[in-house]
Amino acid sequence: METLADLGEFGLIRHLAGMLKKPPAAVRTGIGDDCAVIRQAGGRYLLWTVDILLEGRHFTADAPPRAVGRKALAVSLSDVAAMGGKPRQALVFAGIPPATPPGTVLELYRGVAALADRFRVAVIGGDTSASEKMVIGTTVLGEVERKYLTLRSGARPGDLVCVTGRLGRGAERHLSFTPRVREGRRLVRTLRPSAMIDISDGLLGDFSRIAEQSGTGGRLWLEKLPCAPGVKPEEALASGEEFELLFTVAPGREKAVADCGCALIGEVTGPENGVTVLDGAGRAFREPAGYDHFRRA
Amino acid sequence: METLADLGEFGLIRHLAGMLKKPPAAVRTGIGDDCAVIRQAGGRYLLWTVDILLEGRHFTADAPPRAVGRKALAVSLSDVAAMGGKPRQALVFAGIPPATPPGTVLELYRGVAALADRFRVAVIGGDTSASEKMVIGTTVLGEVERKYLTLRSGARPGDLVCVTGRLGRGAERHLSFTPRVREGRRLVRTLRPSAMIDISDGLLGDFSRIAEQSGTGGRLWLEKLPCAPGVKPEEALASGEEFELLFTVAPGREKAVADCGCALIGEVTGPENGVTVLDGAGRAFREPAGYDHFRRA
Repeated sequence: METLADLGEFGLIRHLAGMLKKPPAAVRTGIGDDCAVIRQAGGRYLLWTVDILLEGRHFTADAPPRAVGRKALAVSLSDVAAMGGKPRQALVFAGIPPATPPGTVLELYRGVAALADRFRVAVIGGDTSASEKMVIGTTVLGEVERKYLTLRSGARPGDLVCVTGRLGRGAERHLSFTPRVREGRRLVRTLRPSAMIDISDGLLGDFSRIAEQSGTGGRLWLEKLPCAPGVKPEEALASGEEFELLFTVAPGREKAVADCGCALIGEVTGPENGVTVLDGAGRAFREPAGYDHFRRA
Repeated sequence: METLADLGEFGLIRHLAGMLKKPPAAVRTGIGDDCAVIRQAGGRYLLWTVDILLEGRHFTADAPPRAVGRKALAVSLSDVAAMGGKPRQALVFAGIPPATPPGTVLELYRGVAALADRFRVAVIGGDTSASEKMVIGTTVLGEVERKYLTLRSGARPGDLVCVTGRLGRGAERHLSFTPRVREGRRLVRTLRPSAMIDISDGLLGDFSRIAEQSGTGGRLWLEKLPCAPGVKPEEALASGEEFELLFTVAPGREKAVADCGCALIGEVTGPENGVTVLDGAGRAFREPAGYDHFRRA
């Protein structure tokens, strides 16, 4: 193992988690979910996330700066949505090439501010520095009632696997997607999902994280995947940056899932056979790999 | 005004602050202090900061990775110290070149983890991504009792201006400085400073921020500056990345300041004459400019 590309993002995270001490009792959930969760007074949890976007990796140099700023906040809001919470405050950090026209910089921040207004998030600080390439990120604090906190680790065998929206156009919409904050709140109020995650690295990869962290396996039905127009189910399975909510819910809630406009796409099983994908004839479909930030293609 | 370098960092921050809506009542202090301050139950405030370090700007490619990771956390802990608070939790975000040896990456995080242990800060999550150049940062949550919260804006004419440590070697020690968390706690308990800031951009520039935000002026006495061995007072005045605490305290506390091991270096005045520096003969010393991340030299 000679480079980070060999180790992979998840190998790295496992190493890092092993390096750190057990967090104190105030921390409900540390590394390994969409947000860190900190206990608060009054039956509430504080949700906390951070995301960094890099020029050349998460956006191109010619992307509209307002859309880049918007995305920086949107990915963090999506993390809060995936825990069932409401985002409250944000800090914005950026590294900006000194030769950047001020209008470009202001557009970048306008993109953050406009999305913050829409979701009633207060932008209350940050850090800016000169940089060779553009870097922007946000850290967001949110809140969730104890009863509505939804982790990745709560899926049980027999639960239904469900998803919001239509998949397969993440790459086209990665600068304009709407974080599913309202949908997440509706889901925790009506369906009380047993586990939830936002789809950033692809449906299959992200469902595998729910299964791994819940100690379960699962079956996904290729034909049931809700695809955007022109998208094939196998593309929907691997498409990243969807930022839809993938969740599990107790069996018997099929009608309530449909009433929420969500698609029922599989079931949680015991861990014996891992995660499998079945085609229309019930045959196992070969799994394409999920996205890993450091792995070679 | 054609580039960000013309606008300058503080010009940018003023523009950004003007773009944002007034924060809700839960936010005690937004943009413009070392940390954002959020009201909590039980007479406490939540302190929140974020800092980003960039290769080539805040550290060189050949800097020891453990020291770089350590610095990433240290600068955020210094922000919490400057509000009189105790740091509690941290998230770490990083952009890492895929060809980096895993040992280097682990050293980077070991640097964060070791300093976190020393200050009993729980590292509970973060974000990692591939990047062309190394980027690392932390966001830290801390806490402070309402009575101990110390802003930049509380200085009053007649207050004494004081500083911890010895100045002028910031550039040499920028990877190894100790954030003044313990000193900050001691100061709020014993001296109850009226205003406080950590010296990141230079004593004169950072004192000017206290004066500006407090609506005062001030006089600094060049001969009273506590200098590291071999450093001239005028160098100590402009030296950045000191991460010592610069604070103001009510008049008459000279002995208590000395008992804390701090130096008394000036006095807060009315705003009429701005901030001036006096040499040993009481003559005005010409002010060198503070550091601005975007300004040309």
